[in-house]
Amino acid sequence: MSPTTQEPWEIKVAHKQAQVKAAIPSEWLLPSTLTPSSNVLGVPHESGILSNKELEITESYTAKQLLESLAAGTLTSAEVTAAFSKRAAIAQQLTSCVTEPLFEQAKERAKFLDDYLAKEKKVFGPLHGLPVSLKDGFKVKGVQSTIGYVSFLDHEPDTTNSVLVNMLLDLGAVLHVKTNIPQTLMTADSHNNIFGRTLNPYNTQLTAGGSSGGEGALIALRGSILGVGTDIAGSIRIPSLCCGTYGFKPTSGRIPFGGMTSPGLIGTPGLVPCAGPLATTFSDLKLFVSTILKAKPWLLDSTAHAVPWRSTHELSGKTTLTIGVLAEDPIFPYHPPVRRTLNNAIAALQAAAPLGSNNQSRGGQSNRHGDLQDRSGKDVHQPHHLQRRAFVPSVAAAVAITSTGPAPKVYGVLDIAAMNRDMHAYREAWREMFRSEKLDVVLGPGAQCTAVPHDSFGIAPYTVMWNLLDVSIPLEKVVVADM
Amino acid sequence: MSPTTQEPWEIKVAHKQAQVKAAIPSEWLLPSTLTPSSNVLGVPHESGILSNKELEITESYTAKQLLESLAAGTLTSAEVTAAFSKRAAIAQQLTSCVTEPLFEQAKERAKFLDDYLAKEKKVFGPLHGLPVSLKDGFKVKGVQSTIGYVSFLDHEPDTTNSVLVNMLLDLGAVLHVKTNIPQTLMTADSHNNIFGRTLNPYNTQLTAGGSSGGEGALIALRGSILGVGTDIAGSIRIPSLCCGTYGFKPTSGRIPFGGMTSPGLIGTPGLVPCAGPLATTFSDLKLFVSTILKAKPWLLDSTAHAVPWRSTHELSGKTTLTIGVLAEDPIFPYHPPVRRTLNNAIAALQAAAPLGSNNQSRGGQSNRHGDLQDRSGKDVHQPHHLQRRAFVPSVAAAVAITSTGPAPKVYGVLDIAAMNRDMHAYREAWREMFRSEKLDVVLGPGAQCTAVPHDSFGIAPYTVMWNLLDVSIPLEKVVVADM
Repeated sequence: MSPTTQEPWEIKVAHKQAQVKAAIPSEWLLPSTLTPSSNVLGVPHESGILSNKELEITESYTAKQLLESLAAGTLTSAEVTAAFSKRAAIAQQLTSCVTEPLFEQAKERAKFLDDYLAKEKKVFGPLHGLPVSLKDGFKVKGVQSTIGYVSFLDHEPDTTNSVLVNMLLDLGAVLHVKTNIPQTLMTADSHNNIFGRTLNPYNTQLTAGGSSGGEGALIALRGSILGVGTDIAGSIRIPSLCCGTYGFKPTSGRIPFGGMTSPGLIGTPGLVPCAGPLATTFSDLKLFVSTILKAKPWLLDSTAHAVPWRSTHELSGKTTLTIGVLAEDPIFPYHPPVRRTLNNAIAALQAAAPLGSNNQSRGGQSNRHGDLQDRSGKDVHQPHHLQRRAFVPSVAAAVAITSTGPAPKVYGVLDIAAMNRDMHAYREAWREMFRSEKLDVVLGPGAQCTAVPHDSFGIAPYTVMWNLLDVSIPLEKVVVADM
Repeated sequence: MSPTTQEPWEIKVAHKQAQVKAAIPSEWLLPSTLTPSSNVLGVPHESGILSNKELEITESYTAKQLLESLAAGTLTSAEVTAAFSKRAAIAQQLTSCVTEPLFEQAKERAKFLDDYLAKEKKVFGPLHGLPVSLKDGFKVKGVQSTIGYVSFLDHEPDTTNSVLVNMLLDLGAVLHVKTNIPQTLMTADSHNNIFGRTLNPYNTQLTAGGSSGGEGALIALRGSILGVGTDIAGSIRIPSLCCGTYGFKPTSGRIPFGGMTSPGLIGTPGLVPCAGPLATTFSDLKLFVSTILKAKPWLLDSTAHAVPWRSTHELSGKTTLTIGVLAEDPIFPYHPPVRRTLNNAIAALQAAAPLGSNNQSRGGQSNRHGDLQDRSGKDVHQPHHLQRRAFVPSVAAAVAITSTGPAPKVYGVLDIAAMNRDMHAYREAWREMFRSEKLDVVLGPGAQCTAVPHDSFGIAPYTVMWNLLDVSIPLEKVVVADM
């Protein structure tokens, strides 16, 4: 326990917020005269803080292209890291997307990597010199992981790296920021009593999504080219769709999840969280997953599957795909832009080739399984009592109403066996549909809605259903947008 | 409920036993004058019940060789099935290893397959015509799965096949018997109040092991060339080592486990049971696993991993192996023949190449984790109350003493999270040892003992530790015996 434990929580929070602010060099601060509109996407470009080259670095490359230039020596890690650090600092000032700026460490790391390349005439690893951002729950030695809990402000800085952090460093990455999340990690509003609320850079009146909402806002503003989030019910996909980025929730155990800071009781059975990427292009999602899997995470984390990177072609041997379409759940009807996007995708596919389709209307039902799986055994309230503070609004709403619409089944909180049986039946129904219909892909939205006003996202049946199934399915909406 | 529900349990059991006996044709009955010694292995050969050709079929082939002859048409499935059915009937009379003789169905099935081959000029599948035995828990349409519970005698015959049974049939196998298990499936003595006690054919005064003890005795007597057991704490490996057969416990989720008859509360979290083969040669274990995996069980069972068959070479790319040696746990010291076998193996390996070695003395500790993982939430007593009967001795002993030796940690029965945390720490310790020592294989015994007198096997730290780790490791003792 640090000697500050007995201070009022407001003092601790003010101290932490001052730390975050102090990590931003004064020349990276936006002028106090700036009065941005609700869409802040243009501010980094207009701010004058980044040079033309830094604007080009942050706007005109994919992660893969940056890596090529870094490896060729046409860009240095120092200049790439400086560019994204500046832009992340601006993003933080506009949207509160950052929890731990690591700008100084990143600068040192970039210099080390540039020196390495100059001396050794080879890259340190496949991610040589690339800045990568991390959701706050990832542990980095010497840095706190408060995950938005005031009570966790009493924790010492971490003395270990999460497994994935070790891997990223071994692969040559630079870590430049950790990013904001919701109190409890269990809402789609990345809002907590330490770091405040992450705003959507497309419209600050709207949610950036959650729980990896800091990543969504940061990447949309190009304060990061590649970020790592986590997902147990939609926490990568929801900020991706709210902020217009790409995101991928792998099957749990693909990307190593060892050594994370947890908001709940570690060891509780139920849905299994996973880590996965957010990026500005679909191909960079693939870059991240393939690079991590090729580095054999199972040697470093006993929860990671010993299954190598496999291309779709290797898996199926098919040259054409059978695509099912997820049926709209009448309890969670699609908002007009979602329905329009999905219909456009279907029309585009039908124009290209005959389309197989299939209905599966259990999205709503899955929410009840998933929601209860998540909560059973986790003492959701306990950390809040510690911080002697009311819930933030989105958490209060989630605690008050675990679901909307008619609830077909109510479980006792300890009836884990019954939940597991129903989860198994749900998985079997999907497996049999995939098998009998010879499906390769199911096309569906990442949510019934696009980004909505703060504290109104509610529950997430169209994402948690895939956590319940826990199969690798890419974020469909994003794939559609890519066509 | 059948109208027999209110009968005394002794009547129900007598009726079932009469059914089993009636399924054996009178010409397959051993003469009542036969007084076998404690080693009954020679009886099938000496009984005069099998022809010379049937003796050759059951004794001089591996499963792989039988499949080659069946495919070539030099053996018919009818004659192979008749030979193994006769021999299984003899094994049953000697050791009580069978629960459900399926001789009539097997005969019909063999005829169908022979006709198919004659007409289509090709095999029905890669297991064309081969008799395969199944532990009693596998469901076969039209056959009961009582798994030794008197209360389950009131159950109707199964109306579905287990997933693996469907696969075996699709692959062309013939199912000729289901085999005996312990009351509760949770002891190493395959003894229950319906089918009695399975005896060890090497010495009927000794246990055949369990819970797949019927398979062990049957295969030792060559009443089956390939059998399927299940394993949650050693239930494939213990009967294999007691009966001198080969056995393999795959990682859970490799061989499909869907649609089994369960002794416990389905959906309870904890150790995950798995299915796997017992056979007369190591190469037939490989035949079974590779054949099932090549048939893509994940299309048929949502609990089966979508991971194809992989050879050791594909996994490691190595041409030499680094072999660790499991340290003896002082709480569970090796019996002399086990220590001698292990030392012989080490000496043989050292003679062949320099040997890496490593110690891991946590077998005993694993037992406590594994044992409690198994029991938590399962109402072990409930089926026994239903059958209004005392435990069989080995179950009574297991219920009275869940472990021997000093217990370093006691869990509350509902403290699943604490057990999961400790299980994770145990897995991490092993993963890190494998990684840091660059191990490929760990050599260790399947138990501290060989076959012991009935009801004295007790707990199984040297097998349950691998269930706790849940990685694919072949039965070490058997591999040693193969050198």
